Parts: sequence; C-alpha cells; structure tokens
Amino acid sequence: MPYSSREFHLASRPSGEPVPENFRLVEVEVPDPRPGEIVVRNTFMSVDPYMRGRMNDVKSYVPPFQIDAPLDGGAVGEVVASEAPELPVGTHVVHQAGWREYARLDARHARAIDPSLQTAYLGVLGMPGLTAYVGLLDIGALRAGDVVFVSGAAGAVGSLVGQIAKLRGHTVIGSAGGPEKCAHIVDDLGFDAAIDYREGDLVGQLRTAAPKGVDVYFDNVGGDHLEAAMFVMRTFGRVALCGAISGYNATSLPPGPRNMFMAVSKRLTLRGFIVTDHADRREAFEEEVGGWVRNGDIVVRETVVEGIAQAPHAFIALLRGANTGKMLVEL
Amino acid sequence: MPYSSREFHLASRPSGEPVPENFRLVEVEVPDPRPGEIVVRNTFMSVDPYMRGRMNDVKSYVPPFQIDAPLDGGAVGEVVASEAPELPVGTHVVHQAGWREYARLDARHARAIDPSLQTAYLGVLGMPGLTAYVGLLDIGALRAGDVVFVSGAAGAVGSLVGQIAKLRGHTVIGSAGGPEKCAHIVDDLGFDAAIDYREGDLVGQLRTAAPKGVDVYFDNVGGDHLEAAMFVMRTFGRVALCGAISGYNATSLPPGPRNMFMAVSKRLTLRGFIVTDHADRREAFEEEVGGWVRNGDIVVRETVVEGIAQAPHAFIALLRGANTGKMLVEL
Repeated sequence: MPYSSREFHLASRPSGEPVPENFRLVEVEVPDPRPGEIVVRNTFMSVDPYMRGRMNDVKSYVPPFQIDAPLDGGAVGEVVASEAPELPVGTHVVHQAGWREYARLDARHARAIDPSLQTAYLGVLGMPGLTAYVGLLDIGALRAGDVVFVSGAAGAVGSLVGQIAKLRGHTVIGSAGGPEKCAHIVDDLGFDAAIDYREGDLVGQLRTAAPKGVDVYFDNVGGDHLEAAMFVMRTFGRVALCGAISGYNATSLPPGPRNMFMAVSKRLTLRGFIVTDHADRREAFEEEVGGWVRNGDIVVRETVVEGIAQAPHAFIALLRGANTGKMLVEL
Repeated sequence: MPYSSREFHLASRPSGEPVPENFRLVEVEVPDPRPGEIVVRNTFMSVDPYMRGRMNDVKSYVPPFQIDAPLDGGAVGEVVASEAPELPVGTHVVHQAGWREYARLDARHARAIDPSLQTAYLGVLGMPGLTAYVGLLDIGALRAGDVVFVSGAAGAVGSLVGQIAKLRGHTVIGSAGGPEKCAHIVDDLGFDAAIDYREGDLVGQLRTAAPKGVDVYFDNVGGDHLEAAMFVMRTFGRVALCGAISGYNATSLPPGPRNMFMAVSKRLTLRGFIVTDHADRREAFEEEVGGWVRNGDIVVRETVVEGIAQAPHAFIALLRGANTGKMLVEL
C-alpha cells in the first residue's frame, strides 16, 4: 500500500540568506517498493551547511538541487516495506533521502544501523564525524605536540574536531559565537580555550589563547577566521579547509584572506577536502571514534527541531549559527 | 693589502615602493683575509624580489636587513686573496655577500663555480633555478598530463618553471606584463600560451588559454593572479605559493583571493615554500637542469644593469617588472 508523505521541494533558489518561500512542502504518495527497494519512514533528518551550496545553480562536487524537485540529505529511519531481503521491515537505516517523511530507495543506498544510536549516524558516527576525523588527521596531518585551532567549534564537525584532538592529547582552541557556546566548548567538551568571534579582534584573542602559535587550523568558517589563523600559525602549519560558512549566503564574493603571503614565509599548507573522497577511512574512523562514543568519551550535543514543517527554519537557523552541536529535524 | 670597495647600506626602510634614498653607497676598506677566509672581487650581483621583504622590520624566514649595515644577497666573483687552500686566488665562486664590490667571507660560505657559466649560478643554476624546480616538481607535485600555469613567467623563476614543464612534456601557460614579454615567453621560451595581465580579465584570458582548466599553478604574484587561477583550476589541483610580488610594496594588506571556498569544492592544495628548506634537492636539480643548460635546451635571458651605483635602480625596476629573465648588476 502506498504511503502518504510530505516532502520539501526547492521552490526557488535563494539569493543571499534562504527564506521560507524558497521551500515548498508537498504532499505525495510514496509507492510500494520494487524489487531491491525499501520504503523508510524517516525519524530524523539532517540539515547541513553544505546544502546551501546545492541551492545555487552552480556545478560543484555535488549536483545542485533542482527547482520543483525534492531536496535530499542525510536521514535515519525504519524500514516499513521491503523488497530487499538484506534490509527487512523493522531495520533501522541511514541513507541520503532526507527532507521527506517517507522515502522509497534502492536498498544499496541504505545502511543498517544500531537503533539505540540512530541520530549519531547523522553526526558523530556519520558524515560530520568522518569529516572531522579525516580533516584533522589526514588533511591537517596532525602530529604529536601540535596546537589545534578549530572554527565553528560548537557545531557538528567542529565539536568533534576539538574532542578528537583532545582525546589524542593536543592543546585545542575553538571559536564560536557568543558566551554560551564558548562556555560549552570549554566546560562540556574540554577545549583548552574558546574565542568568541562576536567579540571581534580574532587575531588578538587567538594570540592570547595560543601564545606559541597554532600548528593545525581546521577551517569551517573561512573569511576573517582563515586570515586570523594564518597570522598566528607556526612555521610548517597546516590548514584543513573544510567549509566557509561565513560566505555561504553571500551574494557577492566575500573578502579573501589578505595575508596569503604568510603561507610562503611560514611554509603553510592549505588543503581543501570533501569527505566523500575519503570513504577508505571509514573503518579506522568507526573503530577509533566509535570506541570513544561507546565509552562515553565524546560528548554529543544535538539541537533538535520538531516536525518536517520546521525543516526550512532549522536550516536557516543553522546558517545563522543558532545550533549547538548537530542540527536535526525530528519527523 | 686591503681593498678599496663600495657597498650599499640600508639608509632607511622603504614605505611602499623603495626610493634611491633608502640606499646609501659607502666607501669601505676590505681587510686582508684571516685564516679560513677569502676576499672576492664581485663580478655580478643579484637583485631578487624577496629582498623587499627583508627591508621591512618584520621577523620572517630570513632576518631583516639592518639600518646602516650592508645589504646582502647572491653574487659571483673571483677570489683575489685567500687564506683558505680549497679556494685559491683565481677561483670563481658564488656566495651571499652581494651589494658590494669586494667581499671578505668565510670560505665555507662560498662555492667554486665554472667561470664560463658564472651568471647562471645566480639564475638557472642558482637559487631561482632550484626554486623553480622544487616548486614545480615537489610542491606543485607535477604529474603526467598536468596543465601548468605560472605567473611572472618572464622573470627569473617563472621562465624556468615554464621551460622545465615544457621539457617534461606539459602544456604551459604563462602570465607577464606587456606584449613584448608575452611574445618572449611563447616565441623564445616555447610556452603554449601567454596572458598579458595588463590587459585585464585574467580569468577570461586564462579560460581561453586553458579551456580544460589548470592542474598546477606556480604563483609568483599573488593577489588577482591567485584568485584567477583558483577560478580555473581543476579538481585536485595544486598551487605552489612561491611569492606574491604584487603585494611586496603594499603599505596596507592587499585584497586576498575572494574564492578560497573553491579550494574546498575543488579539493585544491595550496602550499607555500622557501627554497632554502630544499637543499636536499640540489643534486637532482643540478643533474637534470644542468644537463638541459649544457645541451642548450633552456633559454636563459638576463637583464643586466652596469655598475654598483645602479643596483638600487635595478632593484626598484625589478619590483616594477622591468626585467625579462634574471635581473643582474655587473660590477
């Protein structure tokens, strides 16, 4: 029997900050699965900063969302109909058909998960977690004794970057917006110091927090944060370029770091990366980070918004930095 | 017997573009060598863009020049007095005590050279040559099939980057200022295409010259060139950050590349380097590039200014891009 479902379509491309009118909630009937397919009742969907880029009509590493077509993204849920013996009804799965209540999909595009940890597969054990792990260890080439700075430190990725670095014995400084988030990353997550970017003078704050300089900067923000980090970085430092949320809603090109010449004099390496290139690291990631999660060594904070109708609001709020930890929509 | 010599001291630190008043020509007596030392009569001295940075009172990878003390830099000359048996009178040497007619120095800081190639040791076989070699092959991680773009392509380093890449079978695009230099790099040096940055629209010109995109960008210029390169680079491209001459005379921080987010989506690596970190590559460099020089496969162009009194003029002109090939002062 078909499932009555609601899903969000892209109604129009945002100019600058997305507005609710860019999204359209559509009632659809999700048909029964064909051979090899499953139907999933989604329980949680993820909103992530990278989705903003997909709303622009620009070729990038993932194709742009199409107007009048459903949005997609990470989601978890329970199989309610199955024509795939490997994922029977009742299995909990993680997949990419978010922004909808029911999803019919090829079983090969879903992965069974431990239902007691379901939202973790959208965060610490999912794409944000692997992003933090690969970016810090491989792209940032973390070495013993390195001082680590991460921006967006109260967010899904940044909070894990800092905690992984702490668990490996490093000094970690994080930046976040506002005193509450700054207190959270120090008091709850164990960072050594926090910088409140809303207070201004990033360079001065960073010099105070890292008097000997920074060896690895994990950049989620871009713009002034990248510039400040380069001022304070040590010789042979490394920058993992993960995101640039400060510019995602920009309607013209945002100012770039004015001190790129320091990359020469300090012999810095800046390297952009996309987590989907690094699936070969999933096994090591799940072993190391999964162990920390099971032991309770990693603090996982989530900001959960209720109901699919609130998904655009959650996404817009995410881009404004309203979340602490992973931003999720409970369906 | 002491040698009557003239040498340039730093009279004052430039603000913006250097002016002749920043330099002072001083008459000195160079004493006889002490044990282990030599006195060299310099025949050619080098002026290089990196010297501009040393005129600022800023800690960097080389210490700043001191006010009222002699400038220094690469030079070649003939030993006229020696208390070092390994470098007897008549030996031609390359060393770092430039900006002066006679230099007394520790013999360990000089290296014997082939007198028939003497200026080459300040260019193609010297620091600029090793810079081009290491930057292109190691920092730029040149791979078969890569399309190479180099800025400052008519300069000492850029002209070698392009020629080395051509000799290794790559498609090479260079940028330079003005039609003469552009014709030179294509007609004399064998580049596949030239971009005249004075014509503007670097991005458009680069897209036309490299319709499939650029894999390795060797950056001597920074600023708008780096931004344009990132617009046109292919996925997994590499940027060797060698210099940023466009900003060397800036009195405030120059605008940075506004498209750093492309380093994420395209997974670019930008890496700054200093040639002095790569002395271990000198042997391979001398074998490969030395062979090309001996075979006449590499075209070496020099811009030679006559007389030590003209050295500040040569340096100021270099920063304005007045040279084609290596800028030298004949003493």
